[in-house]
Amino acid sequence: MFVYLVRVEQNPVKMPKDASLNEIDAAVRESYTAFQSYKNVSATKRATFLRVAAQEIEALGQELIKTVMEETALPEARVAGERGRTTGQLRMFADYIEEGSWVEARIDTAKPDRAPVPKPDLRKMLVPLGPVVVFGAANFPLAYSTAGGDTASALAAGCTVIVKAHPAHARTSQLVADAIHRAAQQTGMPKGVFQHVHGAGFEVGQALVKHPLTKAVGFTGSFAGGKALFDLANQRNEPIPVFAEMSSTNPVILLPESLKKNYADTATILAVSIVMGVGQFCTNPGLVIAIEHEGLSDFVKALAEKIAAQHPETMLHEGIAKNYSDKLQQALKQKGVTIEAEAAGEPARQQGKALVGSVAASTFINNPLLAEEVFGPFSLLIRCADRHELYAVISTLHGQLTSTIIGEKQELAEYQDCFRTLTEKAGRVIINGVPTGVEVCAAMQHGGPFPSTTDSRFTAVGTDAIKRFVRPVSFQNCPEQLLPDELKENNPLNIWRLYNGGWQK
Amino acid sequence: MFVYLVRVEQNPVKMPKDASLNEIDAAVRESYTAFQSYKNVSATKRATFLRVAAQEIEALGQELIKTVMEETALPEARVAGERGRTTGQLRMFADYIEEGSWVEARIDTAKPDRAPVPKPDLRKMLVPLGPVVVFGAANFPLAYSTAGGDTASALAAGCTVIVKAHPAHARTSQLVADAIHRAAQQTGMPKGVFQHVHGAGFEVGQALVKHPLTKAVGFTGSFAGGKALFDLANQRNEPIPVFAEMSSTNPVILLPESLKKNYADTATILAVSIVMGVGQFCTNPGLVIAIEHEGLSDFVKALAEKIAAQHPETMLHEGIAKNYSDKLQQALKQKGVTIEAEAAGEPARQQGKALVGSVAASTFINNPLLAEEVFGPFSLLIRCADRHELYAVISTLHGQLTSTIIGEKQELAEYQDCFRTLTEKAGRVIINGVPTGVEVCAAMQHGGPFPSTTDSRFTAVGTDAIKRFVRPVSFQNCPEQLLPDELKENNPLNIWRLYNGGWQK
Repeated sequence: MFVYLVRVEQNPVKMPKDASLNEIDAAVRESYTAFQSYKNVSATKRATFLRVAAQEIEALGQELIKTVMEETALPEARVAGERGRTTGQLRMFADYIEEGSWVEARIDTAKPDRAPVPKPDLRKMLVPLGPVVVFGAANFPLAYSTAGGDTASALAAGCTVIVKAHPAHARTSQLVADAIHRAAQQTGMPKGVFQHVHGAGFEVGQALVKHPLTKAVGFTGSFAGGKALFDLANQRNEPIPVFAEMSSTNPVILLPESLKKNYADTATILAVSIVMGVGQFCTNPGLVIAIEHEGLSDFVKALAEKIAAQHPETMLHEGIAKNYSDKLQQALKQKGVTIEAEAAGEPARQQGKALVGSVAASTFINNPLLAEEVFGPFSLLIRCADRHELYAVISTLHGQLTSTIIGEKQELAEYQDCFRTLTEKAGRVIINGVPTGVEVCAAMQHGGPFPSTTDSRFTAVGTDAIKRFVRPVSFQNCPEQLLPDELKENNPLNIWRLYNGGWQK
Repeated sequence: MFVYLVRVEQNPVKMPKDASLNEIDAAVRESYTAFQSYKNVSATKRATFLRVAAQEIEALGQELIKTVMEETALPEARVAGERGRTTGQLRMFADYIEEGSWVEARIDTAKPDRAPVPKPDLRKMLVPLGPVVVFGAANFPLAYSTAGGDTASALAAGCTVIVKAHPAHARTSQLVADAIHRAAQQTGMPKGVFQHVHGAGFEVGQALVKHPLTKAVGFTGSFAGGKALFDLANQRNEPIPVFAEMSSTNPVILLPESLKKNYADTATILAVSIVMGVGQFCTNPGLVIAIEHEGLSDFVKALAEKIAAQHPETMLHEGIAKNYSDKLQQALKQKGVTIEAEAAGEPARQQGKALVGSVAASTFINNPLLAEEVFGPFSLLIRCADRHELYAVISTLHGQLTSTIIGEKQELAEYQDCFRTLTEKAGRVIINGVPTGVEVCAAMQHGGPFPSTTDSRFTAVGTDAIKRFVRPVSFQNCPEQLLPDELKENNPLNIWRLYNGGWQK
C-alpha cells in the first residue's frame, strides 16, 4: 500500500514531498490489483468499511478539528459541521449500498419457444469502473476531499480510490487518509483499496489522470484546473470520464411584485447567502438579476445596510484571497460597474471583503467577462429595463449549478418561460430561497450544464453520486453459479428489480 | 422545417446534394426552437407521435423494402425483419415513456423544523438535453438509422433530432424521414421536431457536431469516424456527449471440456454467427480463443467444413467490401497467421468471403494489429498453449461490446477469473451462446469499454438507451403549479418514485 511515509506533525511550513512518478505508478497499479478483489467484495462488507471509516474519522477528535483550522482558517463550528457531513455521507452510502436497489437490476427471462428465434435470458446491473482518482477540494477540506463525497461514492460503488491531497490542507488529508487506512485494515479490505498521494504541483495530478489503469476522476475546483484534467483525460488512448465541478455564478432572479412586498426579507436572506463562508461555496449567488422599479431601490438599500454591517473575513488560504481580490478588482474596473454595497473596513492579509456591484443589463450582455465567476463574497446586480431585457440576460447565461427565482405565486406563473429557461441552464432550480446550502439526499442534483461541471448528467452530492463510477453489464444465459447475487433468480438480497417489465422485490 | 427538397426517385446514381453550411445552421436552429416546445410536450403525446411514425413507416410498404434492397444488397427477409425491429423499437419507447417511471423521480420532502437548518423540499427527475444529432449507420439502414434506436430514444426522451442520412442509403433515409415528418404533422408536434439532412462528405457531419445548439450525438460506424466526432465534440467551447459505437472483436472463449464434448455443435453455432449477415454485425465474433488439445482439432475440422459449405456473399456496399478485403489481406499477411477455413469460390465485386485464420497466442499478444476489428465474415482463432496463456491473451484484450464463454458447468466455475476479467472488458457477457443477435429489451447492454464505444456507461439498444439523452434536474421548494406532473405531490401520472427513501407508486 502506498502511503506517504513522512508524517508531517504540527508544522504547517513543512510540506510533504510530492509523490514521484514511480510512486504514482506504484499507487495506481496497487489500486488496480486491489480492484480485482474489491469489485467482488459484498455490499455489506463495503458498507462496514465505510462505517468504520466514519468512526475512525470521528476518533481523530480535536486533533482533526485543530489541524483543519490551522490549515484553512475555517471556524471551529464550520469544521465540526463539515466533519459531520463527511461521516454522514459515508454512512449514507453504506445504507444505500446495503439496501442494494441502486444497481438498477433488470431481468428479462428466456422464451425458448419464441419464433423465429428463441429469446435468451438477460440480466443487467451496474458494476464498478475501476480505480478512481479523487482530487481534494480547497473549499471543503473534509466533505469534498480525502474521505469526501467522491471517495465515499466511489468506494461504495466498488471502485478503489487514489486521493491526491490538496496541498493547502495536506496534513488534514493525511490524518483522514490514515483513518481510512485503519478502517480498511480493520474490516479486511484488500491491500491498496485506498491510496493517498501528495502533490503541490500539477505534475502529480496529471500523472494520475494519464495513468492507463485509472478509470475515472473526481475534481472540485477552478474552471482552468477542471478543464485541463478533462482535456487530458480525453486525449488518453482510452478516454475516461472526469467529473469536474468548476464554476458557477448561480443567478438569482428577483421578480418585481415579490421585491416590492418583501424587499427587506429578500435582502436579509441574500446578504447571508453572499457572505456565508466568506463566499467560498460553489453555490454562492454571484449574479442577481432584477427589473428596475421602486422595489429594487428599496431592496438595494436594505442589502447595502446588511452588507455594510459585515467586516472582511479570513479566506481559506492566501491563494484564494488573492484570486478573489484580483477577480473583484477586474470586475469593478469594467465599464458601467458601480459599487452598491460593501463590508466595513479594509481586508487584512488573506481576508476577503464582501461587495455587491451593479451594472445595466445591456452592458452585462455585451461584456462576457462580467459573466465569469468571482470566487468569494461578491455579487453583481444586473439591472434590467424591463421583462424583455430580463429574458435577454437569462438567455445569455452559461450552464449553472443552480438558478433561483424569488417571486409571488402569480408572478411565477407569469414568468413561466423564465423558469423553463433556467431549468435548461441549471442542475437545480430554487424557488423563494437561496442557492447556498446543498442538502445531501436522494433528490439533490449538484451538477449542471457546462461550464458549471464537465458532465451535467451526474451529481456530486447525494446518493446518485454513486452513478458516476459504474457502468451496466448484461449477462446472457448465465448460470446461477456465476451470476452476482443481485441478479440471481430468487433475489437473495431482496432488492427492487425490473423483472420482465414490472418492478418487484 | 428543413427537409431536403430534391426527392431522388428510383435512381441510385443520382445522389442528393450535400446540405450547405447555411442549411445545416438553419436545421439546428429550427431544431432548438422546436425543442423549446417539445420538451414540454407530455409523454403521452410523444408516445402517440412515435406510434404514428411506426405506422407511417409500415405504410411505406414494398416501396421501402425495395429501396433498401436496391441501396444495400440486403435480402428481403432481413429488410423486413429490420423494419419490424425499427417499428418495434418506436412502440417500445412509446410504451416506456407512457409508463413513465423511467424519469427516476426522487422526492425528499421538507422538514421545516429541522435544526440547525430547515430541510427544503427537493424533487428531482430526468429532463431532455436538447437537439440531438443522429448519424445513419451503414449496417442497419432502418433499425440504427433515420428512425432507428438513437432517433427513437432521443424523441422519446423529449429531445429534438437532426438525422444525417447515411450516403449509402440516402433514398431509404429520405423515405423514412418523410414518414416521420408526416407523423409529426398528424400528431401536432412542433415544427422542426425532426430534421433530415444529406451529406456524402465529412463536412456535413462535422458542422452538425460543432453547432453550438447541438447537445448530443449518436453514431454507429468505424473507430476512425466515431473517434473523430468524439474529439470534435470535446474540443467545442461547450463539450457535448458523443455516443459512438465503434469497433469490437467480440472474443469467444472455448473451454476445453466443453469443446471435447460438443465440438460439432459449437462449430455449427459459431459458423452461423461468423457468416450471419456477411459478418456485418457489430457483434460478429472476430476472435476465438482456445487451449490446444484434441477437442480443438476436431472443432477446427468441423468449423472448416461448415465454412467451406458457404459461398461469398454480397456486402452492403462496395466501400465495405473493399474495406473487408483490405483488412483481411492485412491480417493474413501477418507473421504466423494460417488459414484454417474458407468459403468456396472467389468473391465477385462487392462480395465478402468467409474465412477463419489461426495464430499462436504468443504471436497474437505481440502483434496489436491482430487485435483490430476486421469488419466482415472473418474470425481469428488464437491457439493458447495452456490456461496461463489463455489468461494472458484475455488480459491484453481491448474493451468490447461482448465477450462469450462456452464451457461445461464445472469448467465455468474453474475459470471464474476468466469470466470476471471478461466482465471487466465487455458490456455483455454471453455463456454458451454466440454474440450475434442483440435482443431489444430492458436488460440489454449494447455498449462496452473503449474502443468498443466512447462511453461504456450507456447502451444503444433497449429501453435504457433513452438515458443517453437526459440529465437530472432538482427543484427546490418549487410550488406545485410549476412542477412537472412527474414530481407533483399526488403523483398524477402514477409512476414509481423514490419518496423519502422508499419506492412508491
